[in-house]
Amino acid sequence: MDCIFCKIINGAIPCTKVYEDEALFAFRDIQPAAPVHILLVPKRHYSSLADLTETDAPLTARLLLTAARIADAEGLAADGYRVVTNIGRDGGQSVAHLHLHILGGRPLQWIH
Amino acid sequence: MDCIFCKIINGAIPCTKVYEDEALFAFRDIQPAAPVHILLVPKRHYSSLADLTETDAPLTARLLLTAARIADAEGLAADGYRVVTNIGRDGGQSVAHLHLHILGGRPLQWIH
Repeated sequence: MDCIFCKIINGAIPCTKVYEDEALFAFRDIQPAAPVHILLVPKRHYSSLADLTETDAPLTARLLLTAARIADAEGLAADGYRVVTNIGRDGGQSVAHLHLHILGGRPLQWIH
Repeated sequence: MDCIFCKIINGAIPCTKVYEDEALFAFRDIQPAAPVHILLVPKRHYSSLADLTETDAPLTARLLLTAARIADAEGLAADGYRVVTNIGRDGGQSVAHLHLHILGGRPLQWIH
């Protein structure tokens, strides 16, 4: 599988790891759009949110709940943060492995 | 409860409804940031993503999976879309009732 996030998860490409459990992996974005910019991904490869089905409900919940827990651990809870997932071209998805962006550390502008 | 989204859900404030089931409600944003801009909310009031706990895992999964299903129904699957949730001040959260933004219909710029 020629997926850069799969390679990061399996250690073939280095990263600054923030969190790992049996199903999820989180690391810092190398092109941060904010002082805190973390990517949270399932270890199993899904192309995007659009690939998740009812069968994946437990993983889906875990992904979003873990995003909030990571934001907490990063000290973002008090001032706030944003969680984003991009799907496909119009979404601006750059890597075709489902990932949530966790962004904070400064006031984020709304989408224009 | 003086929450504008609770009032929209219970019909006290009109909206353009897109989707409803027993737990979720979706309507068009009155200040759309993209050709398609839908807000998906749980009917039960939570202030933000930060309020969800493990107990809410089924609802959490449903929320994110339904966002993808709504995007599909809106014809966004082929070109792509973005799903966003803002938490607190830095996130730019404008209404303190947990909501996912579903945005699409044009190429969305990344966060600057």
